[in-house]
Amino acid sequence: MKIYDWYEGPYPARVRIALAEKGWLSKTEFVPINLWTGEHKKPEFIAINYSGTLPVLELDDGTLIAECTAITQYLDALDPSCALTGTTPTEKGVIHMMTKRAEIEFLDAVAVYFHHATPGLGPLVELYQNPEWGNRMRDRAVRGMYYFDRVLQTQPYVAGDAFSMADIAVIGGMIFSALAQLPVPAECAALHEWYTRMQTRSSVQQWKAMVDAERLQRKA
Amino acid sequence: MKIYDWYEGPYPARVRIALAEKGWLSKTEFVPINLWTGEHKKPEFIAINYSGTLPVLELDDGTLIAECTAITQYLDALDPSCALTGTTPTEKGVIHMMTKRAEIEFLDAVAVYFHHATPGLGPLVELYQNPEWGNRMRDRAVRGMYYFDRVLQTQPYVAGDAFSMADIAVIGGMIFSALAQLPVPAECAALHEWYTRMQTRSSVQQWKAMVDAERLQRKA
Repeated sequence: MKIYDWYEGPYPARVRIALAEKGWLSKTEFVPINLWTGEHKKPEFIAINYSGTLPVLELDDGTLIAECTAITQYLDALDPSCALTGTTPTEKGVIHMMTKRAEIEFLDAVAVYFHHATPGLGPLVELYQNPEWGNRMRDRAVRGMYYFDRVLQTQPYVAGDAFSMADIAVIGGMIFSALAQLPVPAECAALHEWYTRMQTRSSVQQWKAMVDAERLQRKA
Repeated sequence: MKIYDWYEGPYPARVRIALAEKGWLSKTEFVPINLWTGEHKKPEFIAINYSGTLPVLELDDGTLIAECTAITQYLDALDPSCALTGTTPTEKGVIHMMTKRAEIEFLDAVAVYFHHATPGLGPLVELYQNPEWGNRMRDRAVRGMYYFDRVLQTQPYVAGDAFSMADIAVIGGMIFSALAQLPVPAECAALHEWYTRMQTRSSVQQWKAMVDAERLQRKA
């Protein structure tokens, strides 16, 4: 398996964490697509993923699978023993719903804020910005933080009693909000407590160690 | 099963068509949430779906599942014999990717255009509009039409050789583009040919008959 991604990206983090949950990080080849130079918006990459986003999974037969949820669904179907997308029909439905909600109400909203109302990836990549829309999505993201805080006041994980793809999506939101300097309010205690707990998971630690190692290597 | 939706909605259409594919339309109770009066944005409905969107599935035990993909995933897990989300790992990955792509590049883009750069659901519901963003999403939707036209030039269905949830998502895009008066260019011949073919499917005909009947009834 080959993954096109960029080590610092919050969306790439989602798939790296899913791979780590499966124990497959070491058997994956990572192909760097530099976000800061806009490599993901160039025609060669658009041919790989029409939407121009990371990450993308390439299978040995050349099949290309973009979108974190789609890639996670593929990985889960290969290895149902460690189910990130649920086992029963209800689990599957609820996990998919909470994953999508984490995107719409938190992660994607932070992304739009970052790309439209902050310098984002810089003037050479951010060729169009709509700051008013970016700030509106910032407000949505902050409301989303309070929403997930309420969810986590009553259950240990984002989609219920077990760790799932939905937790990984909210972790993506936390990573991006740190990157975009849009901190989670201190009063969201349940969300903070959950995130501290998530950072003790082996998969999240493996992801972090990988990012730190690549950052050091690129600086050297 | 209970579905909160509105008969004219393009997103509700996706779940009604999925239910028709399973043969479950007649055993589903539909609870109308009037989009034109903004019932989906009122606190009572936000308690059902935080995102304030239709449709939402309510199970007999009270579990609520929002988001078309999540609901379809639930229905598929109940009845894997008629798989709308794929059977093999690769099918599952590709169908999820193409469904998400149909949303981002077509259906959701038309929705943003409709709500932000046209009168949308009217001044009492559209309390905030960003016409510049709406028009930008209109341009994205038109590019998306050309993209899906290219896809359908080389394969009979959106995600490959079989009808799937991804076709239903593009059908949602076609329904919304008609509603928003954003016609698909005539030169997108493969997309038009595919849509003509989709309208011969029993599930799509059942959906259309239901909408027509409800429209007549509401006018009476």
